[in-house]
Amino acid sequence: MALPLQHFKRGSTKPELPEDGILRYFSMGFCPFSHRVHLLLTLKKIPHHKIYIDLIEKPEWYKDYSPLGKVPALQLTHLEDQPTLVESLVIAEYLDEEYPSPRLFPTDPLQKALDKILIERFAPVVSAVYPVLTCNPNAPADALKKFENALDVFEQELAKRGTPYFAGQTIGIVDYMIWPWFERFPSMKINTEQKYELDAKRFAKLLKWRDLVAQDETVRKTALDVQLHAEFQKSKTLGKPQYDIAFKGHL
Amino acid sequence: MALPLQHFKRGSTKPELPEDGILRYFSMGFCPFSHRVHLLLTLKKIPHHKIYIDLIEKPEWYKDYSPLGKVPALQLTHLEDQPTLVESLVIAEYLDEEYPSPRLFPTDPLQKALDKILIERFAPVVSAVYPVLTCNPNAPADALKKFENALDVFEQELAKRGTPYFAGQTIGIVDYMIWPWFERFPSMKINTEQKYELDAKRFAKLLKWRDLVAQDETVRKTALDVQLHAEFQKSKTLGKPQYDIAFKGHL
Repeated sequence: MALPLQHFKRGSTKPELPEDGILRYFSMGFCPFSHRVHLLLTLKKIPHHKIYIDLIEKPEWYKDYSPLGKVPALQLTHLEDQPTLVESLVIAEYLDEEYPSPRLFPTDPLQKALDKILIERFAPVVSAVYPVLTCNPNAPADALKKFENALDVFEQELAKRGTPYFAGQTIGIVDYMIWPWFERFPSMKINTEQKYELDAKRFAKLLKWRDLVAQDETVRKTALDVQLHAEFQKSKTLGKPQYDIAFKGHL
Repeated sequence: MALPLQHFKRGSTKPELPEDGILRYFSMGFCPFSHRVHLLLTLKKIPHHKIYIDLIEKPEWYKDYSPLGKVPALQLTHLEDQPTLVESLVIAEYLDEEYPSPRLFPTDPLQKALDKILIERFAPVVSAVYPVLTCNPNAPADALKKFENALDVFEQELAKRGTPYFAGQTIGIVDYMIWPWFERFPSMKINTEQKYELDAKRFAKLLKWRDLVAQDETVRKTALDVQLHAEFQKSKTLGKPQYDIAFKGHL
């Protein structure tokens, strides 16, 4: 299906999507939560149509798919009711169970619970870094400190687990679910006055992990260049997010 | 183990818990998220020690169990590392997988995902009702309206599913996970000036569901009287939550 490579906006005509039983993946090009789902779709080679949504000026018709207007959303068009799933982690677990090749979530209930708790503990990293990442001029003075404190948990967890990936010797669900933010962090070096980078000593294990994950085939296939991330964040700071910057590499 | 029937406070001595391999369940007597776990422990007849935590003046030693000081927490003392699980839904799913009698989460990946999304959609109900429930004098004027709008989703979902319980003909995971708040809502009739109650017409199906769930054996075993809920909420409004009100029935 050749949908135009752009984010659908308010006032746009609802696209005619083919009734071919192929999954419909609703996304925003720079959304880290959408990126999580994109990683799984790519890794598991699951055919899907991509539909991009402008999150500031949402198309009126989008609520037919995602009642709260959230991305990511995944419509299961091969099922009778064509239900739409939301919440990146719920979608990830669903995809992992329905398309178990390769399996990412641990099958052991305890390890699965511990991994989910660890993913949950990434939320404070996300909320602390958000104002810095988006160069919000009103970012609280201690935002970076909070961000680093929240990130310490992950540095320590890598030390505790003693493995190159959070999942062990190979990449797994925790690695993929937190990765999207690590792809975005380096844009702070470009966008912040102090050219912020993660401290090489304090986050030694995490930085090694980052370099390792960056080489993963699926990660590379879904990657956007740091310059594009930085450019998008800047446009967001100016109050006019330019979502279509995501397609610059494709032009 | 005969722990004193009280919430442990800052300055308290760390209790000596027996190393008997029995689960340790950390809770606050009125916490609805803890109530979720309590329902599962009770239904599945899982032996456990209960330890109550004062959430305003947290005991210093509690971070040894729950690093972020959150309840509910469940320590698995029968395992080598004695890991502690947090997040009510993660704990619920772990318990359901490890103690599958009776099974509460659907085993079908799609239905499980849809149920999780529905549970997630209860979050706006919780956040909207919170200031009203706690009789916060600064509750936004539209809090009740927001609460009712968020609750409409559940009224509609019951109509859509066409079954007495969200899970079907018998009680299931969605029913138990949202129940704790329905036990607490009637305290608004006591504590609010307008003696607030859910509209009998607008929420006809939900109210019927509520009466049905209220009769469930597990729900009755874990129930606290509405008067106690109201009294606790009042103490909270005054800035001095009296957690031990939860034990009044036991004295």
